[in-house]
Amino acid sequence: MSMERIYLFDTTLRDGQQTPGIDFSVEDKIAISKLLDEFGIDYVEGGYPGANPTDTAFFARKQTHAAKFTAFGMTKRAGVSAANDPGLAALLQSKTDAICLVAKSWDYHVAVALGCTNEENLESIRDSVKAVVASGRESLIDCEHFFDGYKANPDYALACAKSAYEAGARWVVLCDTNGGTQPDEVRRIVSAVIASGIPGTSLGIHAHDDTGQAIANSLAAVEAGVRQIQGTLNGIGERCGNANLITLIPTLALKKVYSDRFETAIDAERLTGLTRLSHAFDELLNRSPYAQAPYVGASAFATKAGIHASALLKDPRTYEHVVPESVGNFRKVMVSDQGGKSNFLNALKRIGLDVAKDDPRLDTLISIVKEREAQGYAYEGADASFELLARRTLGTIPHFFDIDGFRVMVERRFDANGQLKTVSEAVVRLIIDGHRIMSVAEGDGPVNALDLALRKDLGKFNREIEELELVDYKVRILNGGTEAITRVLIESMDGDGTRWWTVGVSENIIDASFQALIDSIIYKLMKNRHMAGRLAAE
Amino acid sequence: MSMERIYLFDTTLRDGQQTPGIDFSVEDKIAISKLLDEFGIDYVEGGYPGANPTDTAFFARKQTHAAKFTAFGMTKRAGVSAANDPGLAALLQSKTDAICLVAKSWDYHVAVALGCTNEENLESIRDSVKAVVASGRESLIDCEHFFDGYKANPDYALACAKSAYEAGARWVVLCDTNGGTQPDEVRRIVSAVIASGIPGTSLGIHAHDDTGQAIANSLAAVEAGVRQIQGTLNGIGERCGNANLITLIPTLALKKVYSDRFETAIDAERLTGLTRLSHAFDELLNRSPYAQAPYVGASAFATKAGIHASALLKDPRTYEHVVPESVGNFRKVMVSDQGGKSNFLNALKRIGLDVAKDDPRLDTLISIVKEREAQGYAYEGADASFELLARRTLGTIPHFFDIDGFRVMVERRFDANGQLKTVSEAVVRLIIDGHRIMSVAEGDGPVNALDLALRKDLGKFNREIEELELVDYKVRILNGGTEAITRVLIESMDGDGTRWWTVGVSENIIDASFQALIDSIIYKLMKNRHMAGRLAAE
Repeated sequence: MSMERIYLFDTTLRDGQQTPGIDFSVEDKIAISKLLDEFGIDYVEGGYPGANPTDTAFFARKQTHAAKFTAFGMTKRAGVSAANDPGLAALLQSKTDAICLVAKSWDYHVAVALGCTNEENLESIRDSVKAVVASGRESLIDCEHFFDGYKANPDYALACAKSAYEAGARWVVLCDTNGGTQPDEVRRIVSAVIASGIPGTSLGIHAHDDTGQAIANSLAAVEAGVRQIQGTLNGIGERCGNANLITLIPTLALKKVYSDRFETAIDAERLTGLTRLSHAFDELLNRSPYAQAPYVGASAFATKAGIHASALLKDPRTYEHVVPESVGNFRKVMVSDQGGKSNFLNALKRIGLDVAKDDPRLDTLISIVKEREAQGYAYEGADASFELLARRTLGTIPHFFDIDGFRVMVERRFDANGQLKTVSEAVVRLIIDGHRIMSVAEGDGPVNALDLALRKDLGKFNREIEELELVDYKVRILNGGTEAITRVLIESMDGDGTRWWTVGVSENIIDASFQALIDSIIYKLMKNRHMAGRLAAE
Repeated sequence: MSMERIYLFDTTLRDGQQTPGIDFSVEDKIAISKLLDEFGIDYVEGGYPGANPTDTAFFARKQTHAAKFTAFGMTKRAGVSAANDPGLAALLQSKTDAICLVAKSWDYHVAVALGCTNEENLESIRDSVKAVVASGRESLIDCEHFFDGYKANPDYALACAKSAYEAGARWVVLCDTNGGTQPDEVRRIVSAVIASGIPGTSLGIHAHDDTGQAIANSLAAVEAGVRQIQGTLNGIGERCGNANLITLIPTLALKKVYSDRFETAIDAERLTGLTRLSHAFDELLNRSPYAQAPYVGASAFATKAGIHASALLKDPRTYEHVVPESVGNFRKVMVSDQGGKSNFLNALKRIGLDVAKDDPRLDTLISIVKEREAQGYAYEGADASFELLARRTLGTIPHFFDIDGFRVMVERRFDANGQLKTVSEAVVRLIIDGHRIMSVAEGDGPVNALDLALRKDLGKFNREIEELELVDYKVRILNGGTEAITRVLIESMDGDGTRWWTVGVSENIIDASFQALIDSIIYKLMKNRHMAGRLAAE
């Protein structure tokens, strides 16, 4: 039996932008579209060019290779022709493969929100689709409030969908805009749309999670015949979020009821990148991944001490609904550190350290890491700091320098012209070969000043770190409130393009930053001596 | 038509206890069972008396009034009689109304995990149910791995369920223990169970969220005929969690496809306590409520989009799938750089500022907000800073004090005992009524030191801010890399429990924190004078 293709349409950068607390910069959008494109998503909807400066800048060039780069916009207003509608004109200027226009399909909203007649709205849909098709682009129509509209006036909702389809839209997307529709209603209404003459291969579903059923609604629509699913990374989106592609993709790929019939562009190999994709996206948003997330969460394959744990060890397959590694995740049994040990052995092997399973230094390392992670360190995101810790515990690291201390001052004062300005100054004191080296620098902020002071004079090592660059800096407040602990992650880059992350934790943000900066410098000195593992492995 | 009753069975204190990171004390369990009992849950499963000291202590007395207080345990082992099984004996000693025993229903697990014959397992089920019934208690059987077991050996899975039913179990609960079953499979298998002779009024469903469909699976089972749903508060539970009762309850009560046929003990009045229940539970767990949670999240009825916001104000009902107040939540229209004029008007109205749509100061405010959001400010998360900005632009804010400057120093040095320690000191200079006030304080970090110095001497306002407390602090690095801009968000709390957020943005984290601290103090001074809008609106 030949497989039926399901197309994945990502709207993280458009509907996801509606999430309270999320605002993407142009750089964010470029980074995220790259993640989506490389993972194998079919359509990347990037935003609404013309509506705000960020989206206009983002659409100045095509941002994807394999994925269809898609702009969002509105159908033309009533009373002007498609050619004379300024919004549509801006869209047709953007560098896109496809244009997805939102159209009202609930007669009530046509009257109240658009203030035009039902027939004028149908005409807007037809003319707008034709204008997109005439520009040589693929045309998609998001039928807004489709399910609620269908319940209120089925004939009119169907007329909107059919107008789009007959005018040449490649996809007519049925949107549960308010998110309250139940799976059985989705199934019934999608069937009615198909019965009205629009083939399922031209239909898409756009579901929201307002009753916790965006996944079930999307799958109910697929079962009823639609062949495109719109969703977002980690389910971000307006109100309770959109359908979570990170959950839908493995369900389609791994659940027999779907995998026997359907396929997406995400094959088994790509699927192993799912956990990484989900976490990389959270990293970009600077938030902790949700531990209980289906498939990709840290707890998704975790078992706590109890009745299941020992049986799980006998035969994991009958206690896990899918194989954790198939989505790039791993099993975690918290009853013993057996699982932990093999994780450590693997991590050490990756950096070129072969350690015997019964080496007592391995137990020492595991307990140090556990203790430090309880304090707030996160070695999963700080490869270089983990490697330094491992090498310190298991082997030797050369002694490069001692830290005598530092002082950072931030002052807000009036300058010579009577303007308030803020000045940051850092003094660093190191001891190298018994000599005390003191350097001072000013910077854009306290951490920048510290970084500049540190690299200003590293004595005999000074030339060695010339190409070392701080490329990213992240801060997370743990615990919150008054007993806040600060975790700082710093990404460094070398002249050869190699990048690594280091971590520092303290109740004092300056102190945490200093720890991460020092780790980065020591890692670089190790790397120069071919003593850092990743280099050995390359 | 008479309504069919759906029974709600809460397992927060038993399966919820399997959540990684969650461990309830006896006091926690008492507090949570009280919340559940008062809310109107039918069954409160409290834990496994005999298995650990906490649960044994918790079951020393009956903890609920209206709800059936339920103990969890295992069916008797093969080879001993029910009377001689020590586990079952401990259960029968506990002060409970009902006992829910877990039974294997997948033949593979009977062989591998129990190591007994299929017939011995059926006998254990029968004898255990009879022993519970004989003790005068209601008997429930959780058929573990029922759906996977049914797929592997339908006859044996059905035999397990029927043995329990025929021995007198009030409820036979079909468990999707591994969480991977899809709604259509649930529907099909539940129908088969009912066809085999167990009435739906004796069947329950226990679903997990491993494919994000615990809600849909529970509802699919109800549609197929079951009349008891097991779940937890806020969906906590092993791995990805259990079915979330906080989502299921309003869906059953407010969605016509269910509310026309079914009823629970949660009537419309009780339902208005849903948001409070969900947040009270998070408070007990000492974690922030999930903003995007269906029905009860802070974002569940929030709108950021300009295109939706203006129409939303015209007629909220057509943009909301349920009325927010019906679940004790409320509508929120947020200011953001995506929002149009109507967003602003609505936000201003909420803080008691009535502005005409064509007031030129409104355009000024909008352009200031957009410009500042482009710089990195985020007013949607900083209500108090937005209010101060609006009042500054539209009206007047009293002049409380001027800032002459500040200086913060962080030093890492050796103390008198030769130990490295980090010291943070802040000096703040203010001008009040022409007088220069200078204060200095040491803190746990530079921001804490600044906060302490600021509140140490605020001159004539000093007593006014005595109850002001910094309760949360968030940092976000924007842009990243070397041109990083830092956004700081600070949450403050007043003596009366009121909370507000302020924001600061700078390339210097200390400077950004200072801005947010100053905004919070000015907001508090305004509030004291009944000049802050939320107070006026109360």
